[in-house]
Amino acid sequence: MGCIQSFRQCCDRPKNTNVRISLPAVCFVWQIAMIILFGIFIRYNEESDAHWIEHKTSKNISSNIENDYYFRYPSFQDVHVMIFVGFGFLMTFLKRYSFGAVGFNFLIAGFGLQWALLMQGWFHSLDPMDGKIKIGVESMINADFCVASCLIAYGAVLGKVSPVQLMVMTLFGVTLYAVEEYIILSLIHARDAGGSMVIHTFGAYYGLSISWMLYRPNLDQSKHRIGSVYHSDVFAMIGTLFLWMFWPSFNSAISDHGDGQHRAAINTYLSLAATVLTALAISSLSQKTGKLDMVHIQNATLAGGVAVGTAAEFMLMPYGSLIVGFCCGIISTLGYIYITPFMEKYLKIHDTCGIHNLHAMPGVIGGIVGAITAAAASEDVYGKEGLMNTFDFTGEWIDMVPTRQGGHQAAGLCVALCFGIGGGIIVGCILRLPIWGDAPDNNCFDDEIYWELPEDEENNPPTVEYNNHMRNKAVTESNLSLERRQN
Amino acid sequence: MGCIQSFRQCCDRPKNTNVRISLPAVCFVWQIAMIILFGIFIRYNEESDAHWIEHKTSKNISSNIENDYYFRYPSFQDVHVMIFVGFGFLMTFLKRYSFGAVGFNFLIAGFGLQWALLMQGWFHSLDPMDGKIKIGVESMINADFCVASCLIAYGAVLGKVSPVQLMVMTLFGVTLYAVEEYIILSLIHARDAGGSMVIHTFGAYYGLSISWMLYRPNLDQSKHRIGSVYHSDVFAMIGTLFLWMFWPSFNSAISDHGDGQHRAAINTYLSLAATVLTALAISSLSQKTGKLDMVHIQNATLAGGVAVGTAAEFMLMPYGSLIVGFCCGIISTLGYIYITPFMEKYLKIHDTCGIHNLHAMPGVIGGIVGAITAAAASEDVYGKEGLMNTFDFTGEWIDMVPTRQGGHQAAGLCVALCFGIGGGIIVGCILRLPIWGDAPDNNCFDDEIYWELPEDEENNPPTVEYNNHMRNKAVTESNLSLERRQN
Amino acid sequence: MGCIQSFRQCCDRPKNTNVRISLPAVCFVWQIAMIILFGIFIRYNEESDAHWIEHKTSKNISSNIENDYYFRYPSFQDVHVMIFVGFGFLMTFLKRYSFGAVGFNFLIAGFGLQWALLMQGWFHSLDPMDGKIKIGVESMINADFCVASCLIAYGAVLGKVSPVQLMVMTLFGVTLYAVEEYIILSLIHARDAGGSMVIHTFGAYYGLSISWMLYRPNLDQSKHRIGSVYHSDVFAMIGTLFLWMFWPSFNSAISDHGDGQHRAAINTYLSLAATVLTALAISSLSQKTGKLDMVHIQNATLAGGVAVGTAAEFMLMPYGSLIVGFCCGIISTLGYIYITPFMEKYLKIHDTCGIHNLHAMPGVIGGIVGAITAAAASEDVYGKEGLMNTFDFTGEWIDMVPTRQGGHQAAGLCVALCFGIGGGIIVGCILRLPIWGDAPDNNCFDDEIYWELPEDEENNPPTVEYNNHMRNKAVTESNLSLERRQN
Repeated sequence: MGCIQSFRQCCDRPKNTNVRISLPAVCFVWQIAMIILFGIFIRYNEESDAHWIEHKTSKNISSNIENDYYFRYPSFQDVHVMIFVGFGFLMTFLKRYSFGAVGFNFLIAGFGLQWALLMQGWFHSLDPMDGKIKIGVESMINADFCVASCLIAYGAVLGKVSPVQLMVMTLFGVTLYAVEEYIILSLIHARDAGGSMVIHTFGAYYGLSISWMLYRPNLDQSKHRIGSVYHSDVFAMIGTLFLWMFWPSFNSAISDHGDGQHRAAINTYLSLAATVLTALAISSLSQKTGKLDMVHIQNATLAGGVAVGTAAEFMLMPYGSLIVGFCCGIISTLGYIYITPFMEKYLKIHDTCGIHNLHAMPGVIGGIVGAITAAAASEDVYGKEGLMNTFDFTGEWIDMVPTRQGGHQAAGLCVALCFGIGGGIIVGCILRLPIWGDAPDNNCFDDEIYWELPEDEENNPPTVEYNNHMRNKAVTESNLSLERRQN
Repeated sequence: MGCIQSFRQCCDRPKNTNVRISLPAVCFVWQIAMIILFGIFIRYNEESDAHWIEHKTSKNISSNIENDYYFRYPSFQDVHVMIFVGFGFLMTFLKRYSFGAVGFNFLIAGFGLQWALLMQGWFHSLDPMDGKIKIGVESMINADFCVASCLIAYGAVLGKVSPVQLMVMTLFGVTLYAVEEYIILSLIHARDAGGSMVIHTFGAYYGLSISWMLYRPNLDQSKHRIGSVYHSDVFAMIGTLFLWMFWPSFNSAISDHGDGQHRAAINTYLSLAATVLTALAISSLSQKTGKLDMVHIQNATLAGGVAVGTAAEFMLMPYGSLIVGFCCGIISTLGYIYITPFMEKYLKIHDTCGIHNLHAMPGVIGGIVGAITAAAASEDVYGKEGLMNTFDFTGEWIDMVPTRQGGHQAAGLCVALCFGIGGGIIVGCILRLPIWGDAPDNNCFDDEIYWELPEDEENNPPTVEYNNHMRNKAVTESNLSLERRQN
Repeated sequence: MGCIQSFRQCCDRPKNTNVRISLPAVCFVWQIAMIILFGIFIRYNEESDAHWIEHKTSKNISSNIENDYYFRYPSFQDVHVMIFVGFGFLMTFLKRYSFGAVGFNFLIAGFGLQWALLMQGWFHSLDPMDGKIKIGVESMINADFCVASCLIAYGAVLGKVSPVQLMVMTLFGVTLYAVEEYIILSLIHARDAGGSMVIHTFGAYYGLSISWMLYRPNLDQSKHRIGSVYHSDVFAMIGTLFLWMFWPSFNSAISDHGDGQHRAAINTYLSLAATVLTALAISSLSQKTGKLDMVHIQNATLAGGVAVGTAAEFMLMPYGSLIVGFCCGIISTLGYIYITPFMEKYLKIHDTCGIHNLHAMPGVIGGIVGAITAAAASEDVYGKEGLMNTFDFTGEWIDMVPTRQGGHQAAGLCVALCFGIGGGIIVGCILRLPIWGDAPDNNCFDDEIYWELPEDEENNPPTVEYNNHMRNKAVTESNLSLERRQN
């Protein structure tokens, strides 16, 4: 801890938030690198290549409708909405950080999905014949999934980092994700349809570790900006609802064709419904007058979807899904009430969106539920072929039995935790270097730093005098911006 | 009427809006009950069970793509968006009730869909072999449909009831819905793909009757809060548009595979397009200066979707759909201008969202259009097999003829009306009991009562002095809330 | 130019913005005309008619899932969202024109799609047997596409025209669209899956030419209303994101079943991702302090989807898509910075939403990319059958070769340009007539003119004294409106 502290101090030089050189440079360099790497490595797969018609004949496929596109594209679009509108708007709750929430979310996701296609391709879909990565609709879903883990991590550091830091964080996050995903799904052969372990546990601990490394002792100078305003809470509900509604698609997007996707959607639908009730109940209980808190409604209602992720395609049974949702609604809401303040005060981890309650804890629960459900699987419940299909007991895993699969699931969870925490600490160190253009402690959670703001006096809450100073500055600058816009 | 008045007075004791005990208690009791009942009764159906692979072989189904999931899941997701974002945001138009609109909508829907799966399951999909309810994607759509009727009813009492009342209302509403649906669809054998009768007529009259029973003579003390503000009207348009866009999916979600779904989508698409034009025209005509009124755009433009519901999968013909939409746009907009004020003044029915114009009248029209279209059906237009398929003239109904089907459709409409009005009056009586924590007349339409509000001075319109008092209170309380959020 | 100027002056009589007679009259006349024409001409096609079951047997189709509905309906719904929420909310960025943006968008689209079904039907799907137009899900997608071109044109004149003008513009726009589409796709046999030429190039130049004809020399009297406010920029992001996310569906909606749709989605997904990075980079570079501008994020990030439209279903290769997106992000953002001001100052074209940068330039680039990709196509890359399928070298075009196809693509682009510019000038002349109820120069970009506004003092920016006068008027009027709403 001592060396971490001294490293911290060495990094705490005056901040320069001008990203005019660094941000464009990073964007261009990486985008050009992507083009070159895509040129070398990435090709269409059989189902999206113009040779599909020949492939179809050779494989005796009767109709175009059996192209994987028709099995997965509707789910892909739902997942896509979750990534861009769901995560983006969920983070707009801060009174003066909506541009940053939705805009940087857009940037991270747009960059991350390209890198994810490459990284995941190298591990999962490299064609040994020609050394190319073959992509299709499932690759796009997987790239969106991978990006989701980085956006979860963004939730922990929202408002406290620069866009350049976010891009670095995404670059490493995607890389780590691809490796841990390969270890968990391919080497350990754990199943994780909805990514409770691979996406949520990893992403959340990655973000929390980074937030710990980037701890700002004087963040209370920006305290007055950490609240929401009435409208920003309504905007955040857009994010919440799109995440909530499309979560069944998220958990079923890459599960098995047929009953697998069908069952995953049902389980998630039920789990989420139960979460809504218990999250509201605990929220009301926690207040002297029984009033509800929007923070809980916006976040804790989603915990059931996270926790049912791993087991979504298993025979969890409808009541099982309800039980998972029931527990997670309670745990997640209690997390917002007790654990988040505790973590900030004693562990020096500031978690802007409370991802520990929405992703970390439910993710771990999801991993455990998955391990138990897998270990308890039987031919009675699944049928002989059903068991083999659901757990993919084929190829080199043909001798696997459910009880051992349970152990593998648990091992997968540990790997996700290690990668999240370990990776986060290392990347956090890198992000402490005073070269990334992040804001000083008294200027966090403010779009002013990285965005041209419109002239907008009334909506800027004049709670603290300091705001007046900033506003005058803003008016001058945004007059320029206004003129440009008017042209 | 006399006894109703005296009952009313007996109920009008001072209000206590603290729901800290009642709301969590109801949520927990009901959620635990759901888990137990799901454990006893609910299982996956053949297409979502892991035995699907064996079932597929035994039924000689060639491909996974013929799993009902792929026929209905995209529509399900659209319906899901309508329920949560559509209905939720449509009701955010009030200046200080957006949290309640979108939050309680979320609560009702989350609870209602679980109870609906059970109630509808007992009536429709109880497996006689093992006494279990088998659920799949169609059950989820039906549960969402059922919840829609309760959300429609919520529109009439928006801002005037407590969350506990809403849950009671939903419990009874779902129960009544399941019974009337069983009578209309199974016993009477009426067809109602888009639920003009089953969902909209029932839901709207259920809500209006409750609103009548809960009439507040002194509601004008909250008058200053019944308006919208600029931004809240834009939020409401999110709801309007998602309802409008996805209505074709709503009406086609559970209609027949193939041409049935295809035709239902086309009819609804056309009907809604015509409604937009006539609603705008009447809105403009009704103002001295020809200005448009957002209330009409937000609501009346949707009436065409309601009215084409029953007949959506019939051979209504494209021009028929346009005619239905044409008429409903006019009637619904005129309803907002003339009938809503009349109902409040003379019938003592206060209808916050104007559901009488958006759901009740178009629903009845839809039922009538369905009856006429069914009675006029002929083998010429449908083909022999098409007629049998569309009207399900199979099994015990094999001797049914279109003219008699028309009569059955009309009978179905009457049942929906009776259940809506009768059920609403009874449930309304129950909800008048002074134990549910609803707000006093001078505090309606205010999120302050049930929600922790953020510190947000500028957006709180200081129209009336009373607000100042409330605001000071709000600031004190929300400071606490702010601190919690900051942790 | 002289005659245009004198025509302009002759038209510049005092404006009367009362549309109480004209708007309802136009709506009713056109809607009734639609009903009559639909009655005469429009019928269901084979796949949406109740005879489908017989058709299926006769054509030996094995399953209902091969109904075109299941291939295209999910894409249709995504396109539908783009039209109504995407385009509608993208234009809500102005501080006091959100109602007009989203409301008139709704009106145009609702009317336009009916007229488009007729016009496109006459050209493309007239059944020679009975003289009827047969519609199905693909017709609905095409109608939405057609409407998109008119909504693009609306972007150029946003805030400066009356709803009656918009309807006239749409009537002619749809007509012109249907003709140019027929020429480009059927006569010239160019391919244009995502409509870079047919939709975007045509729509944008149509709108720009109209804006040129309607040039208002004194528009700076409304200058203070051309900015955004904080919340309106967040609303606009809803539009941006739904357009961005669903663009893969837009470009793949009517491309070939199977690999065609699959490939179009992948190409668009990649191109858009690259655009996000370069648009942000240029946006940051263009500011002295490296701050990002919301105008660029909202618009330029979409340019990649436009530019990849024509070539989306070709074998553009993943890296090719990235290159297209890379270039368009740069060009489009530079357009906002340099070309829009230039066009207003020197060419007298005021382009409210900057459609020249978002649709016109990327559309032309898309046409060129399509021509090059088509000319470079080879049997090596596509396979023999793949080449025939992708470029539809069947029937009378069986002898076509890729290099000639490239020429035809280029010819298609020219046709789109001519129709856009020529049609726009003519329609612009018509719209200058002083009978359409457009606002005077000092009242543009103000919802006050055509909408009943809610009492809403705080959100009305008191930048200019003139506003105070308007506000007092508004309060008086909206009190009336408030009373009505309260009933």
